[in-house]
Amino acid sequence: MDRRSFLKNTAIGGSTAAAATLAAPAYAQGRRTLTLVTTWGRGLAGVHDSAQYCADMITAATDGALTVELKAAGELVGAFEVFDAVSSGQADMYHGVDYYFLNQHPAYALFSQIPFGMTPQEMNTWYYSDGGMELNHELGALFNLKPFLSGNTGAQAGGWFSRRIESAEDFNGLKFRMPGQGGQVLSKLGASVQNLPGAEVYQALASGAIDGTEWIGPWADEKAGFQEISKIYYPAGFHEPGPALTLTTNLDVFNELSASHQTIIETVCAASNMNTLSMFLSENAAALERLQSAGVELHEFPDDVWDAFYAASQEVIEESMGDDLYRRTYESAMASQESSSKWVNDSSGVFMKQRQRILG
Amino acid sequence: MDRRSFLKNTAIGGSTAAAATLAAPAYAQGRRTLTLVTTWGRGLAGVHDSAQYCADMITAATDGALTVELKAAGELVGAFEVFDAVSSGQADMYHGVDYYFLNQHPAYALFSQIPFGMTPQEMNTWYYSDGGMELNHELGALFNLKPFLSGNTGAQAGGWFSRRIESAEDFNGLKFRMPGQGGQVLSKLGASVQNLPGAEVYQALASGAIDGTEWIGPWADEKAGFQEISKIYYPAGFHEPGPALTLTTNLDVFNELSASHQTIIETVCAASNMNTLSMFLSENAAALERLQSAGVELHEFPDDVWDAFYAASQEVIEESMGDDLYRRTYESAMASQESSSKWVNDSSGVFMKQRQRILG
Repeated sequence: MDRRSFLKNTAIGGSTAAAATLAAPAYAQGRRTLTLVTTWGRGLAGVHDSAQYCADMITAATDGALTVELKAAGELVGAFEVFDAVSSGQADMYHGVDYYFLNQHPAYALFSQIPFGMTPQEMNTWYYSDGGMELNHELGALFNLKPFLSGNTGAQAGGWFSRRIESAEDFNGLKFRMPGQGGQVLSKLGASVQNLPGAEVYQALASGAIDGTEWIGPWADEKAGFQEISKIYYPAGFHEPGPALTLTTNLDVFNELSASHQTIIETVCAASNMNTLSMFLSENAAALERLQSAGVELHEFPDDVWDAFYAASQEVIEESMGDDLYRRTYESAMASQESSSKWVNDSSGVFMKQRQRILG
Repeated sequence: MDRRSFLKNTAIGGSTAAAATLAAPAYAQGRRTLTLVTTWGRGLAGVHDSAQYCADMITAATDGALTVELKAAGELVGAFEVFDAVSSGQADMYHGVDYYFLNQHPAYALFSQIPFGMTPQEMNTWYYSDGGMELNHELGALFNLKPFLSGNTGAQAGGWFSRRIESAEDFNGLKFRMPGQGGQVLSKLGASVQNLPGAEVYQALASGAIDGTEWIGPWADEKAGFQEISKIYYPAGFHEPGPALTLTTNLDVFNELSASHQTIIETVCAASNMNTLSMFLSENAAALERLQSAGVELHEFPDDVWDAFYAASQEVIEESMGDDLYRRTYESAMASQESSSKWVNDSSGVFMKQRQRILG
């Protein structure tokens, strides 16, 4: 996913306007309006829908006592300004993916996605049952925030290429667009990593200014039209095997709410987490079939490329381990992943291997 | 899982007492008490916890306007009587696994588990995004019920054996305990299938009256103590790769509720679905490590055994296909599974294969 994918459909940089527009939480007839800003352009496939689900369900479950008004990126504040806006109390909540906020704290990577990181199921097992949520709240409190996981896109695709990748050396000098820590990993393999805003990616790929790009997955990739330029698609990637989304409320605002309204926010976020992943898996599946009908060919990176992805990912992660909270969070997450994945591999993994063998 | 596993911790057959105890929904000071009956003995690992989570969260989210009182199996009605109790309005809600109610309608298998069926993620994709919930409500309406998925145990283990299974022929004459459609599948392989109540399984296995048993998974299996008798454990099974649990409300009661309270029930059920699976995956993982420390050895059925499981499963499923709603539901579920599993295999599946290869 792209730090700037939301730029495609929206104007950015609303901070000056926002200072005049934002005000203290509105009360009217015992009802409270909560302003929800997002890192997503209005209508961005899946992720905007996830934010809208949260807004609609909180409003409906409280019969409007909490009326959540969604402002997409650029409508009130710019996409990357949502963190500061909610931390300072200018806005009440944000919906986004927290690796956008690595500059605030490196541990935000662990509550969204690190390279070669967790699947959605592993993330959720850690978050809800193995201490992840408590660490997320510890992190949030540093910034006067109360976060809850509220969505997951499922595994993001490895991306589109102008030629097939035969070995890790093929990344040397490759002009490839990938944001965040995934891009740092490809840099270590010698790639010339570009971080183009979403609106420019299609043209850059078409003109040959870049040799390839990752985006989100079949649903969003098809909407971007990359299949018109390349037919070489790698569905599996190392960079985001299950990025989590978050609904984060200003901590003072959260603490002012009744216990019942706090419960509603928490349970709606968990419901949205479930609902968002299901939506992505359904829509990606249908889009993948259409892409293949349009002549797109699916490929897998060879083993030695995966080995190189893994080694470089560990280097990137190691660079954040000097921070105490990052290290504690990383160790908690990895202990949970190692434990739960063992059982899942031995049970579901074997079942799936057999089903695939029998059904093809 | 066992139709009668809840019998272990509870007395059953409370119907006579129930007739005197149950009454119309209670109202007091604008609050409404909803009676939640369950198919689980009080305290049964994970599944009782899932029902309690639903009760607690609905009560908390409504600030007690709906106060959900949980009555475990046998406390008000017997485990298998919950369906009739809620359908008739004697009780307001039940929490259970719907393959217990195949006698009411064969399609209930499809909203809990069929042999060789869906993983939790496939079930949820179908349910929330590919039409499953609508079909579940169509089925429920036949019985004056409003169901929502509210939990998942994750894959259940293949079970415990007195000797290793080398080929499908080894099931011929094997005395094995497995309830439901899974048991029907083993019968087709020549097994002598027993459906013992939970409290009797340990003794039957210890005495040699049965040659093996499935139960739930490491967490519950360890509590049952099977590792004291057998060290031969098959973590993967064909019979329940992801059984869903349901919170089902009497339809008249549901329709009387405000829209906000209906939303709360729906979102709490989705949150519980997420929360319950996470709990099982966390607890199973820790229990599996303890079982291995206690000398339990993990095994996999050979390919030809899986082939036999699959062929017999299709025979069992085919026997229900004469029912129109079953057939429509089955076709909807399989279309969703085929579509979503293709994308998941190509993305997450490849990632997991590589991670397992690299990390061992």
